[in-house]
Amino acid sequence: MDQLMAGSWSLLPLGWRVITKINQVIREEMNAIDSQEMLMPLLHPRAIWGETGRWGSAKESPLGAKEVMYQFKDMHGKEFALSFTHEEIVMDLLRKNITSYKDLPVSVYHFSTKFRNELRAKSGILRGREFLMKDAYSAHASEADLMKYYEKMKQAYVKVFTRLGFEVKVTEADGGVFTKNHTHEFQVLSPVGEDTIYYCDHCDWGENKEIFEGKAGDKCPKCKKGKVVEGKSIEVGNIFPLGTWYAEQMGMCFTDKDGKKKPAWFGSYGIGPTRVMGTLVEVFHDKKGIIWPKIVAPYQVHLIQISNDQFSIFKKAAEIYNQLIKAGVEVLWDDREDVSAGVKFSDADLIGIPVRLVVSEKTGDKIEYKERDKDKVELLSLDELLCRVKN
Amino acid sequence: MDQLMAGSWSLLPLGWRVITKINQVIREEMNAIDSQEMLMPLLHPRAIWGETGRWGSAKESPLGAKEVMYQFKDMHGKEFALSFTHEEIVMDLLRKNITSYKDLPVSVYHFSTKFRNELRAKSGILRGREFLMKDAYSAHASEADLMKYYEKMKQAYVKVFTRLGFEVKVTEADGGVFTKNHTHEFQVLSPVGEDTIYYCDHCDWGENKEIFEGKAGDKCPKCKKGKVVEGKSIEVGNIFPLGTWYAEQMGMCFTDKDGKKKPAWFGSYGIGPTRVMGTLVEVFHDKKGIIWPKIVAPYQVHLIQISNDQFSIFKKAAEIYNQLIKAGVEVLWDDREDVSAGVKFSDADLIGIPVRLVVSEKTGDKIEYKERDKDKVELLSLDELLCRVKN
Repeated sequence: MDQLMAGSWSLLPLGWRVITKINQVIREEMNAIDSQEMLMPLLHPRAIWGETGRWGSAKESPLGAKEVMYQFKDMHGKEFALSFTHEEIVMDLLRKNITSYKDLPVSVYHFSTKFRNELRAKSGILRGREFLMKDAYSAHASEADLMKYYEKMKQAYVKVFTRLGFEVKVTEADGGVFTKNHTHEFQVLSPVGEDTIYYCDHCDWGENKEIFEGKAGDKCPKCKKGKVVEGKSIEVGNIFPLGTWYAEQMGMCFTDKDGKKKPAWFGSYGIGPTRVMGTLVEVFHDKKGIIWPKIVAPYQVHLIQISNDQFSIFKKAAEIYNQLIKAGVEVLWDDREDVSAGVKFSDADLIGIPVRLVVSEKTGDKIEYKERDKDKVELLSLDELLCRVKN
Repeated sequence: MDQLMAGSWSLLPLGWRVITKINQVIREEMNAIDSQEMLMPLLHPRAIWGETGRWGSAKESPLGAKEVMYQFKDMHGKEFALSFTHEEIVMDLLRKNITSYKDLPVSVYHFSTKFRNELRAKSGILRGREFLMKDAYSAHASEADLMKYYEKMKQAYVKVFTRLGFEVKVTEADGGVFTKNHTHEFQVLSPVGEDTIYYCDHCDWGENKEIFEGKAGDKCPKCKKGKVVEGKSIEVGNIFPLGTWYAEQMGMCFTDKDGKKKPAWFGSYGIGPTRVMGTLVEVFHDKKGIIWPKIVAPYQVHLIQISNDQFSIFKKAAEIYNQLIKAGVEVLWDDREDVSAGVKFSDADLIGIPVRLVVSEKTGDKIEYKERDKDKVELLSLDELLCRVKN
């Protein structure tokens, strides 16, 4: 990553590879629950945010969001907001296209940029002014159908975070500028977390600080067996059962089976891939650097050659590189000249690719194999290596 | 697509699938010439645009771009611009990381959103206020190295547009707000094009209207054999050999082999995927709708079942759908109930997927097969079908 200004980062090639892998895990789980990928604009006209009152401040309107939105006028005086979320945009799309209960349910998602006028643009990539978000939206003909899908989405989110390597806590929370209903947050325990959560050490109960009315050590209000534990955590996702409020404000009505016009039931669901990447680094690292879980590692293998002036060593490294590529393995080959073995090793630890391979005079016709999170070093033949890394 | 406001569109699921396929073709050709994918921010501080004078108007500064940029203040008075291009951002990244000729050349690209304060936000998706762009940037230690890479990029662009199904003309052009040097545009002939170009009917010579000093019918100034032809066209890409101007303005200097500090040679290269999609529709359609080239079609096969109330027909359609999916074929199954065959057929023609399959009482144990751009209708067995669509 490279910082352009407070709260705003360029994702460099290795970091971008991590993001695309995080996105792919999310994409697979969204597609598995029949959500469809699309893309919505980032520049929004003032009028659409006026319909729900979110253009205004929290003092003017129940969900007023002026404080977090970037709002501005172009040179002709036309007013715009930058996307801080997309509920209103989805609603506009749906009201133009949905007429009957037969058109419902609908679920769509996109990966796109969000802008938030954060006063506390700190914690690096964990809280940016500009960041990536996967946001999904679903519309339903009944509350029962919304809540059934909401539960499906909750399970899909647990799958996403579990596949990414996290142990995730699902906590009930306040809806902020999105809804007056209670919502759910997905929290990863970490000492650098900005959130405080309370969870049961026995069952799946959890609440965040804003709504919990009790203290650590209390008996769990759900299972009555476990004890309430307090923890610092990072929020990596949240889901909102928005109800019919948005559809009522924006006139997103459909004709139901009984012939009556009704507002649609609506939910929204967010995961921030850049924040997920930051959380992965917080959770998976040691004093030497990052330890990427395999599923999101920018490459699977980090190949280092030592003693560059010997053409035979270079040739051997090239052969291993080509064989691995042919076998479909993602390899980062550190073929830099005039860089010492020590620097190459510490860069490899810092970058955190799961497997490090070394070719040098000392390794003979074998290859040195080491996993990032283990101390054991082995010498393998090329065939042994190929078997190992393909698993 | 769905219009949010003038010049701004949501890409719906089918359109988004087309964009991801266009992006994949571009990605493959960028990777093939060793450009690395990354992602840069969209919100930029005023200071960085001040360094090259592009924050100001064309009257104040040689490449002043105030007229096309969205510029605004946040509530604390801090000034920002929305990305209309990324040269300055790349330069900032490079000057922080490049010190020696050994660090060069570098080539990076990203797919991201661009904003342009277009007065003439018309022509649908062809000229938007907000659109997608693949922009690549390269930095080099010498002019010779830049121009060698520039030529490689030109060939990569020709490959991209050829793979997408276009017959593309490469024309020399003026550099606009990017450079005082001549640049190259990639133009697709179309009667709805906003550009006028002149090209040779015999060799690869071409120039756009702003720089051509002659008239249609002249002898080609390059090969002296062909004749100059005038045509209306749509610009789908452009490449800029920017020279050292940006590096000089922004202090992006490296230490060369001779120990001297020198400014880097810089090039930038753009393709607009959303504009490419619009151009594909302009070029590949008939009066019934779109005719997508296979390589970008949202799905390869459009499956229609007629006479839904017969469970046997539904079951057969489901079997064909599952067999095709298992074979790795992308299928859009129009399983709508209460929609007539006529509507399904005209929707299929409108959407423009390459192959249409029909299952009905009339087709018996065969499947009706028709290609979008042909009139011939065939009856195939499931095995024959699988062989056909897998080719």
